[in-house]
Amino acid sequence: MAQDEFAIIQQYFADVGKPGDNTVLAIGDDAAVVEVPPGFQQVVSIDTLIEGTHFTLDTSPEDLAHKALAVNLSDLAAMAATPSWFLLSISLPEVDAQWLQRFASGLKLTAERFSIQLIGGDTCRGNLSISIQIAGLVPSGQYVSRAGASPGDLVLVSGQLGNAGLGLASRQGRVELPEALRLRCVQALDRPQPRLELVDFLRNFASAAIDISDGLQGDLAHILKASHCGATIVRASLPVDSWIEQQDLYHYALAAGDDYEICCTVRPQYRAEIDAWNRQHADCSLTVIGEITGPGYFLKVGDDKIDLASMGGYRHFD
Amino acid sequence: MAQDEFAIIQQYFADVGKPGDNTVLAIGDDAAVVEVPPGFQQVVSIDTLIEGTHFTLDTSPEDLAHKALAVNLSDLAAMAATPSWFLLSISLPEVDAQWLQRFASGLKLTAERFSIQLIGGDTCRGNLSISIQIAGLVPSGQYVSRAGASPGDLVLVSGQLGNAGLGLASRQGRVELPEALRLRCVQALDRPQPRLELVDFLRNFASAAIDISDGLQGDLAHILKASHCGATIVRASLPVDSWIEQQDLYHYALAAGDDYEICCTVRPQYRAEIDAWNRQHADCSLTVIGEITGPGYFLKVGDDKIDLASMGGYRHFD
Repeated sequence: MAQDEFAIIQQYFADVGKPGDNTVLAIGDDAAVVEVPPGFQQVVSIDTLIEGTHFTLDTSPEDLAHKALAVNLSDLAAMAATPSWFLLSISLPEVDAQWLQRFASGLKLTAERFSIQLIGGDTCRGNLSISIQIAGLVPSGQYVSRAGASPGDLVLVSGQLGNAGLGLASRQGRVELPEALRLRCVQALDRPQPRLELVDFLRNFASAAIDISDGLQGDLAHILKASHCGATIVRASLPVDSWIEQQDLYHYALAAGDDYEICCTVRPQYRAEIDAWNRQHADCSLTVIGEITGPGYFLKVGDDKIDLASMGGYRHFD
Repeated sequence: MAQDEFAIIQQYFADVGKPGDNTVLAIGDDAAVVEVPPGFQQVVSIDTLIEGTHFTLDTSPEDLAHKALAVNLSDLAAMAATPSWFLLSISLPEVDAQWLQRFASGLKLTAERFSIQLIGGDTCRGNLSISIQIAGLVPSGQYVSRAGASPGDLVLVSGQLGNAGLGLASRQGRVELPEALRLRCVQALDRPQPRLELVDFLRNFASAAIDISDGLQGDLAHILKASHCGATIVRASLPVDSWIEQQDLYHYALAAGDDYEICCTVRPQYRAEIDAWNRQHADCSLTVIGEITGPGYFLKVGDDKIDLASMGGYRHFD
């Protein structure tokens, strides 16, 4: 069994993901060396998952590895960047060979699926936590930020909202779900799918984008703040499972985190392009849920308008 | 007082370090966007400091911020890269405004001194830990790795060895030091100075380099392994405080971590360049401590030769 951090890195993490064209020197030195091809910019982000805050000790190592990488990949998708490499810093209470083997194999699967390579990192003793720093590439000037939305733009979200939140509530015994839905919701929570298939669409058509990690309501508010505008979204348009509709559990779609779908804004003249996208991508459809406006942030429920401006999303220090 | 992670990032971390020429989009979006100028490669590394493993709760926030950034800057120095930007992931047991203010101001001082900008990060609740991911630039092909040493090369170290280890031993009551030395050793432990002044020298003259984070003996072994050769180092040549010599405490210079000096190898024909460096850099002098050889790793003590190959440096999971 590996006993020191160098052996752990060599044994478990030296071959996660295939070497990218731009990797000059990967794992095994003081640092890694990479290139950024001419005409491209690099998009970088860091996200940490901490035991007790983001997951519990009974989370499977494979799911944990997937999720740690997926939430970072989701940040790249939201910027319209293509994954290139990542660094891993993992702290472990002890060296558990079986756990490490399972964590590494989960990490490999997700890294290979999204064509990204682990090029460096560090390992130390401490409470279980996983920091991943990720980098992607975007043709110069084609990244999509939170700023850029303007009145008249359509507000879109990918996939379905609220499932991850329902999955967590179900696991914690706060809600009882039909079995098929429960399985789907737990899957949404444990195995979020970064929406990298949207990268080209976002580059071509989105004026602003964000990934929904803290709940639609709070995350769309970030776009509004950065873009200096408001929005009205229509509750009946939210893409949710029919059970959420029937049971009136829309707060899972609005305020629960961990969906990792993309919320973006698109100029209204691109409606045909949205329809074309949806005809070809049934598993990642885009739904128009409202419109960017002047000041004010509202949810239309039937004929009523609820003021969302004064309400927040999930915050780690609330 | 800031109550959520977005407010914390805005309030404390939005202006750490001056914007670099290559920063396109800094803090405040899903990710940051940077450029790498033509003819340069990017050097990237991640290092985490964890309470209980790397520092104790009574460490001053300013020192902690400095050290978290300094150990990462030291990795860049060891690769002969010039700092460009960093990402910070910090987990905190609670929001303590005074602590955050002091941590951020310590971080700013060190970031400005080494001309590096904080361009993104995340904050969450958990045991105190700090992950920094750093990036630097190097003219293409001029990075210095651990591989590249060959028999006949001189082995050099910068500065003085063993002081940080003595500082820790003194703080833990394991050794009693003369007061002036104690102050210097505690300073070496709490405020390590990344040796970025060596970057040009390393690019021009070093065949291999590493920073000494885990002790000379173990870290030089990494160079030997990556370069497929051996070395003999001479104990009497080690640059140590005279107190280490008098008290025969050489194990602090050989096996204690946290010095963050640079160990490098240089072809013997560059002796004049080493001397020239030393004439101009009294505060970062380079000392020849031995020679790269064929197989075998030895410490010469007088006429004796101690076999170092079977002994290790500090390991986080020992």
